[in-house]
Amino acid sequence: MKSNLSNLGDRLTYFTASNHSGQWRIVSIKPVTGDGLDDASYLSLNHHRDDDTVNSTEVPWQLCGVVSNTRYVTNEEKIELENIQAGLGRPQATCAALIPIRKTSTWWSLSQEERRDIFETKSHHTANSIPFLPAIARKLHHGRDIGEPFDFYTWFEYAPEDAAAFETLVSKLRSSLEWTYVDREVDIRLERVE
Amino acid sequence: MKSNLSNLGDRLTYFTASNHSGQWRIVSIKPVTGDGLDDASYLSLNHHRDDDTVNSTEVPWQLCGVVSNTRYVTNEEKIELENIQAGLGRPQATCAALIPIRKTSTWWSLSQEERRDIFETKSHHTANSIPFLPAIARKLHHGRDIGEPFDFYTWFEYAPEDAAAFETLVSKLRSSLEWTYVDREVDIRLERVE
Repeated sequence: MKSNLSNLGDRLTYFTASNHSGQWRIVSIKPVTGDGLDDASYLSLNHHRDDDTVNSTEVPWQLCGVVSNTRYVTNEEKIELENIQAGLGRPQATCAALIPIRKTSTWWSLSQEERRDIFETKSHHTANSIPFLPAIARKLHHGRDIGEPFDFYTWFEYAPEDAAAFETLVSKLRSSLEWTYVDREVDIRLERVE
Repeated sequence: MKSNLSNLGDRLTYFTASNHSGQWRIVSIKPVTGDGLDDASYLSLNHHRDDDTVNSTEVPWQLCGVVSNTRYVTNEEKIELENIQAGLGRPQATCAALIPIRKTSTWWSLSQEERRDIFETKSHHTANSIPFLPAIARKLHHGRDIGEPFDFYTWFEYAPEDAAAFETLVSKLRSSLEWTYVDREVDIRLERVE
């Protein structure tokens, strides 16, 4: 009897590193806080796990996240985000970033209202992100409740001309009060393989 | 490469039904809304999966849930709950209930503030539950993000003299606005095996 994770279908994404081939070429893997991840040349995103691939020595690491319900946005923010955000896979969005983060046990022991207060009222996570939409497409995957080494995997896609805007967005988030609760973060940059 | 769920340790609980033996004797399994679960005689709770047991024909079903961070309680409610609630395993608590529920896709597409409004402001989920503590001990396990057939598994333990109070609590919850978003519910009652 295997894990039921496969029941999640398209809600589940495997981020599989390889030195041989993949959908995206890894440009850099930089540890931001805490331990990094091993070097690799390519990354592929799939909704199902290929055990033959994963058991090979070609796979330095594999991460896995699940899309869940929203946690912090208000109804108004949710509607605004849904109206403005872009989907993944736009032809011009040849740049991508995968940013795995883990938050401290202190963060997870806070109540919902305390986390919302830090996330939005004090850190303006959503308000600061909205000006960068739809140029920067993003998808949030959760790892904490499926035993992953990181709590969140956010995947971003953008066109090369929006690379500077992406740096600004990442910099704003990292300087927020919310980020003082991040105890591990890795920054992976990628280019779409033609 | 196996699922990482085993990394969750004690946050993960397997609810394993058996017709042969177990920690708890199943008194009844009643479908409340939607499909029920197959009959079984015993139930055991474990933090690790025993594949030999699960593959045997002795196991009519197995459910699995993960303890996560709180989602709806305010800081004040959280502190009140922590101060008043009892732990599992009290010797006098020889009665138990496992209530698996699944909520509709409409519920999961609501924003956090809309769900909180239904959960507490309109349904008084926490306020209605607090008077029954510490007599009724409870532990909430999440299933939705690990591919389970139910979104939540709540495990309750209480002494026989608190059985009427437990019925009142369950009845209050089922008549709430929140419960109109429940599209599958099973009610399993148990007695501790001496």
